[in-house]
Amino acid sequence: MTESPATPAFVQRIPDGEDRLRDVCDTCGFINYVNPKIVGGSVVTFGDRILFCKRAIEPRKGFWTLPAGFMEERETAEEGAMREAMEEACAKIEIEGLLACYSVPRISQVQLMYRARLVDPAIAPGPESTDVALLTWDEIPWSELAFPSVKWALEHFAAWKQGASAPFANPPGSIYR
Amino acid sequence: MTESPATPAFVQRIPDGEDRLRDVCDTCGFINYVNPKIVGGSVVTFGDRILFCKRAIEPRKGFWTLPAGFMEERETAEEGAMREAMEEACAKIEIEGLLACYSVPRISQVQLMYRARLVDPAIAPGPESTDVALLTWDEIPWSELAFPSVKWALEHFAAWKQGASAPFANPPGSIYR
Repeated sequence: MTESPATPAFVQRIPDGEDRLRDVCDTCGFINYVNPKIVGGSVVTFGDRILFCKRAIEPRKGFWTLPAGFMEERETAEEGAMREAMEEACAKIEIEGLLACYSVPRISQVQLMYRARLVDPAIAPGPESTDVALLTWDEIPWSELAFPSVKWALEHFAAWKQGASAPFANPPGSIYR
Repeated sequence: MTESPATPAFVQRIPDGEDRLRDVCDTCGFINYVNPKIVGGSVVTFGDRILFCKRAIEPRKGFWTLPAGFMEERETAEEGAMREAMEEACAKIEIEGLLACYSVPRISQVQLMYRARLVDPAIAPGPESTDVALLTWDEIPWSELAFPSVKWALEHFAAWKQGASAPFANPPGSIYR
């Protein structure tokens, strides 16, 4: 995913009443606001198993992840998480609640991770996955997880099962700038 | 706030491996992904009072709202909520936890509403407010609230104080498309 570049018509300027540089069109005054993007995903369970996807694409191709991806226009956060599970693992899921909200300011990303239930165990790799698996806790390939937030979500899910209150935020010391 | 328009160099096309139209540059292949925007805000308490701001700007100029606004690049969701409280009410706050995550698909918006504590009762209107107030529950001007999600957040905050579990999502029937 790439950010929209400033086109030649734009100049960097602090608009009236604001406090930071924006891309502003010198001709029409249009301000091109750029804001953080939302990733919606889920810890999907089927009994005592959790759904994992092996990434077919960069970044972190070949590593295991939870179904998650960029939220699209005109959907709810829950619908985004459901769509990603379908796209990446052909998995029909039901959202149970918001587990965590993580921020990754270095890449201007907010990750909304839900708890979800797999409705039908018939799963299969979608175009962005080479493999999918329903793993017990002891089978999780900790050294082959794609992103730090995958580990956070799994550990927070375990904490939630032990009675800790959701939603969780970034673990201490994990705000990457 | 306005969305970035497609410049004349862009055409609408479904990129390879995707399932929906994007603005794609016919010259360089750049894909201009547009995604939902995040609003970060908070229910800020000082004892049994809640912080409200009277809007100086459209939309809903003259109506009362909770401090909230569009999250900026390279900040965490919590930092966004703290910045908005400072900008709109000159209020220094401490984030206590995520109260709710609402989606408004009609305008492709996700609202992250935190519970927060006012650190110093010296508040004042910022440039986007004509007035600020610390109100008890009985003083809330329900008919003069700016947005439906302000009411949702207040009611969810009351439910949370009664022992209900956060985070809350959209109330039933309130997903506007």
